Amino acid sequence: MEFPSKLIENAVGELARLPGIGRKTALRLALHLLKAEMDITATLAEALAKMRFEITYCGTCHSISDAEECGICANKLRDHSQVCVVSDVRDVIAIENTGQYKGVYHVLGGVISPIEGVGPADLHIDSLVERAGAEDSEIREIILAISPTMEGDTTAFYLSRRLRDLANVHISTIARGIPMGGELEYADEITLGRSIVERLRQAR
Amino acid sequence: MEFPSKLIENAVGELARLPGIGRKTALRLALHLLKAEMDITATLAEALAKMRFEITYCGTCHSISDAEECGICANKLRDHSQVCVVSDVRDVIAIENTGQYKGVYHVLGGVISPIEGVGPADLHIDSLVERAGAEDSEIREIILAISPTMEGDTTAFYLSRRLRDLANVHISTIARGIPMGGELEYADEITLGRSIVERLRQAR
Repeated sequence: MEFPSKLIENAVGELARLPGIGRKTALRLALHLLKAEMDITATLAEALAKMRFEITYCGTCHSISDAEECGICANKLRDHSQVCVVSDVRDVIAIENTGQYKGVYHVLGGVISPIEGVGPADLHIDSLVERAGAEDSEIREIILAISPTMEGDTTAFYLSRRLRDLANVHISTIARGIPMGGELEYADEITLGRSIVERLRQAR
Repeated sequence: MEFPSKLIENAVGELARLPGIGRKTALRLALHLLKAEMDITATLAEALAKMRFEITYCGTCHSISDAEECGICANKLRDHSQVCVVSDVRDVIAIENTGQYKGVYHVLGGVISPIEGVGPADLHIDSLVERAGAEDSEIREIILAISPTMEGDTTAFYLSRRLRDLANVHISTIARGIPMGGELEYADEITLGRSIVERLRQAR
């Protein structure tokens, strides 16, 4: 692509480095910013830089945070006896949006993946074991909420091994089954099989 | 969506104002930037701000430019007797990428659209008439390369009326027809009809 301006070429190049944004989309975004008020671009550039440079991570759960302790860990009204272990901050936001969980979190920062060279030491696993095993720990249940992919299952398996010696702490995983609106005939055998084995008895 | 951090909420909000980027995509982009090196965000923010604040428009053709005269208008090797009229800078880039055009451009900055309140006075039409009618003008052909939408056709019609009094200047429009790889049976009747009426005689 040839550009009539080096400035726009640079901006398009930088935008196109973002995941899922190709050069055509990047050009569309750049031209949109050029047409819009200068304020829009100024606020966007400032918000991005501010986010990147000022954000910190919670010392307890490793989620992103504006302070040393994140809003969830600092919240006395949340149930600090339940810890939900997730791989990513995105999962925290997804679970928070359900409004169904009142406990706290622990963000691993990824999953164990030998192919990508991510081992247990690269994740916040030691700090979870430490946190759950501390003498003054209130933790009674650890919920493994990790995506059921190959790497996710490996990570969950590794975690349950590391955590099994903790007395008084129950380990659970999120329920697997047929999603809402899912058609039985299109479900894979493993999910469908599990959903029968782990069937829920209806209250009457 | 609830966010664990005001900083990320702001960044997601600003990203989601871009066209075609929803809040989920914005969150994915923000988290990507958080995971990547700080440099990446710094360069992106700077490239966007620099582009928006430093870019100027060519005084002759109104295309975006780094200087008072754009690279195409300043290029003595281009054919200054041909002017291609387009609605948008994007079209200049698209035509340049074909490598088939050696003339210069005139960017209208939009099309006539009564619904969106864009009239002829909001576009760079007067400056085109002036440019083509100037005593020292080299212009011999004006090629209307405007998208064949309702607004585009209105604009092209208006332009040909404004330009018809210019002696020694031919007005042409880009060819309409079946695009490369297009199936005849799926082409609309107007395009197919025109492509037959304006058929090209093969050289033998």
